[in-house]
Amino acid sequence: MLQVVPVSEALEHLRGMLSRGVKSGRASTMSALGLVLSADIVAGEDLPPFARSTVDGYAVRAADTFGASESMPAILDVSGDVAMGSLPGAPLSGGCAMRIPTGGALPEGADAAVMLEYCEEPGDGTVAVGGAVGPGENVIRRGEDVATGDVLLKDGHRLRPQDLGALEGLGIISVPIYEKPRVAVISTGDEVVRASECPGPGRIRDMNGPAIRASLERDGLVPEYLGVVPDERGRIEDAIGSALQFDAVLVSGGSSAGPRDMVALVFDSFGRQGVVVHGLALRPGKPTIMAVIDGKLAVGLPGHPSSALVAYETAVRPLLRHIAGEIVPAGIPVRARCSRNISSRPGREEFVRCSLRRDGGEMWADPILGKSGLISTMIRARAFIHLPLDSGGVGKGSLVDVYLFD
Amino acid sequence: MLQVVPVSEALEHLRGMLSRGVKSGRASTMSALGLVLSADIVAGEDLPPFARSTVDGYAVRAADTFGASESMPAILDVSGDVAMGSLPGAPLSGGCAMRIPTGGALPEGADAAVMLEYCEEPGDGTVAVGGAVGPGENVIRRGEDVATGDVLLKDGHRLRPQDLGALEGLGIISVPIYEKPRVAVISTGDEVVRASECPGPGRIRDMNGPAIRASLERDGLVPEYLGVVPDERGRIEDAIGSALQFDAVLVSGGSSAGPRDMVALVFDSFGRQGVVVHGLALRPGKPTIMAVIDGKLAVGLPGHPSSALVAYETAVRPLLRHIAGEIVPAGIPVRARCSRNISSRPGREEFVRCSLRRDGGEMWADPILGKSGLISTMIRARAFIHLPLDSGGVGKGSLVDVYLFD
Repeated sequence: MLQVVPVSEALEHLRGMLSRGVKSGRASTMSALGLVLSADIVAGEDLPPFARSTVDGYAVRAADTFGASESMPAILDVSGDVAMGSLPGAPLSGGCAMRIPTGGALPEGADAAVMLEYCEEPGDGTVAVGGAVGPGENVIRRGEDVATGDVLLKDGHRLRPQDLGALEGLGIISVPIYEKPRVAVISTGDEVVRASECPGPGRIRDMNGPAIRASLERDGLVPEYLGVVPDERGRIEDAIGSALQFDAVLVSGGSSAGPRDMVALVFDSFGRQGVVVHGLALRPGKPTIMAVIDGKLAVGLPGHPSSALVAYETAVRPLLRHIAGEIVPAGIPVRARCSRNISSRPGREEFVRCSLRRDGGEMWADPILGKSGLISTMIRARAFIHLPLDSGGVGKGSLVDVYLFD
Repeated sequence: MLQVVPVSEALEHLRGMLSRGVKSGRASTMSALGLVLSADIVAGEDLPPFARSTVDGYAVRAADTFGASESMPAILDVSGDVAMGSLPGAPLSGGCAMRIPTGGALPEGADAAVMLEYCEEPGDGTVAVGGAVGPGENVIRRGEDVATGDVLLKDGHRLRPQDLGALEGLGIISVPIYEKPRVAVISTGDEVVRASECPGPGRIRDMNGPAIRASLERDGLVPEYLGVVPDERGRIEDAIGSALQFDAVLVSGGSSAGPRDMVALVFDSFGRQGVVVHGLALRPGKPTIMAVIDGKLAVGLPGHPSSALVAYETAVRPLLRHIAGEIVPAGIPVRARCSRNISSRPGREEFVRCSLRRDGGEMWADPILGKSGLISTMIRARAFIHLPLDSGGVGKGSLVDVYLFD
């Protein structure tokens, strides 16, 4: 019998036993998309490095436009042009305006810009400004985007496109990152053969190995698929032993407590630590093993494909992101109405595969029922409906939390 | 003045002018994560190829267990063992049971399996089955997961980990896919230099180029960053001309209708088709150009970083996914309460950057206000609040649609 533990409890416990980030290094910013920062990034300069206009128009002192309107424009002397890509030579005197393009550097003395549309040059060296602007209006002040000394991005943050844009804007062309963990994937089962092989009678091709391998790739890890091992203790020991050269090991199949389930025994046989959790309060996905061997995460996933994928998404992925160095932000569910009754039992979390549709301004989740031994239910699904630990099921039309597959 | 068009209208129009998928080819299933199928995948065999037990226990005829209970077990003759990875030699006769491990092949004649926990062997060659099972219980029938002739996955589908698992399970080790489109990225601006260069006075480093380049990478396209071009018509023409060897071109800056905005003119100068939309009913992101040149998508993005990124996410990304061959599923928003008033004007869609937090069982969106010329607002944000075309703004506490950045 398995001693089941709630997923959140298992995660907290395991996270405490595994270091965040396996190895730090550096990457060029250009190639750092999806990598995790291993240190805070502090801005070494101001962005922008000078005050800039955000419009085509005139650089002015805002105070010179106060009270101006279309019928009573402020008349200012045009004292020159700001050329793009250079700093204006002279400061702007009171009562004056300079023509300025979008992105042009504001002359000293100016604190705002007026849009071209509100201005008219009668041809006598002046400009009639037909509207007032406040200080800072239509300009970005020096350092308004990022100021010297600001923490732009934090240790543990996974880099997104906009982050790379800002880093490059600050001239930061390489960044401290955690190297991607390398994760071994092993499938077990006397009846399982590699996909490239023709299964003989009574045998099937491995599905969990390829699906978990691809999940790791999607999640920014470096997967190493080590193939299929029969249900023989010695063979499983050998396979896991050599997989321990990687940063983590995921084994699918043989994770329950039956006579042919040897993965937990093998995890324990490696000594230091061994199995920490055997059994999750999770459906599907209950027969999951979480072990730590010499500081490395070793997981036994259920053999049923949907169980393996649910256990991976909910219990393994957060730990792999931790090992990858990420400080994992909270998941954000979509709220949807469940289109049929789902029975559940308090004491275990349930993740029900579903599709989603919008109907009458509301989001509806359509549960996809089916045995956890089927992978096709995962293919027809776009998301999971989450029934928490204390849920006794939901009625048709109830609002539920839905987590999209990424 | 720009003639603004709603984003949905622009997308529909452009989608009609651009072919879905640039070039089809084949990829090995192992390396096909994130690629888009260029044809339906039809199962050529049954999955599983034989009926399997999903439990450790006994293969039985369900009818032989009807009425069985703990106090009144059904007594069946044990007629042998199913060995893993082989097909049982003899069919199961009525009144008999065979020992079977999880994943074992059901003998002919059997239609269900009973879990070990409900059975006892008294030692006289029989087994006492202490519970009834229905036909199909604890087994997966031949072809129950995927049947020969089923359309497993459709043309235009972007491959996910579970899809690869099923493909490999069916022995499909290569798949028809659309090749990833190659997309050129050009930044324009006299004041803009490459990130690796030291900007002189009045100049700034390119942020849009790297951010858009990384967005393309994230979205499964092959980006080609062609660097920075000054605001000179000839130079922009040359740059776009050589960028047209790629499958699409994204230019940032110079996309409005001012005296220094030349991208629309250049798009038109290439003849066939030219600018289709100049101006989106979108904030930020209004000065966006969508053109078709000789069947290829050419986009002018605003120079302000947040505008460029919003226009990319909302108006460009769906078209690039179309060019990549994908039949793009509807976006799924998160519903959250807006933590402050946001004013808006009917007639344009707004995307307000926001962070998200859970508070009292509810999701709250905290708007991040700031000029569209700032990239830091995109860094502090995790999502966009979407105010539709007809919105006149939202009050504090109102429910809004929120789209997470991927």
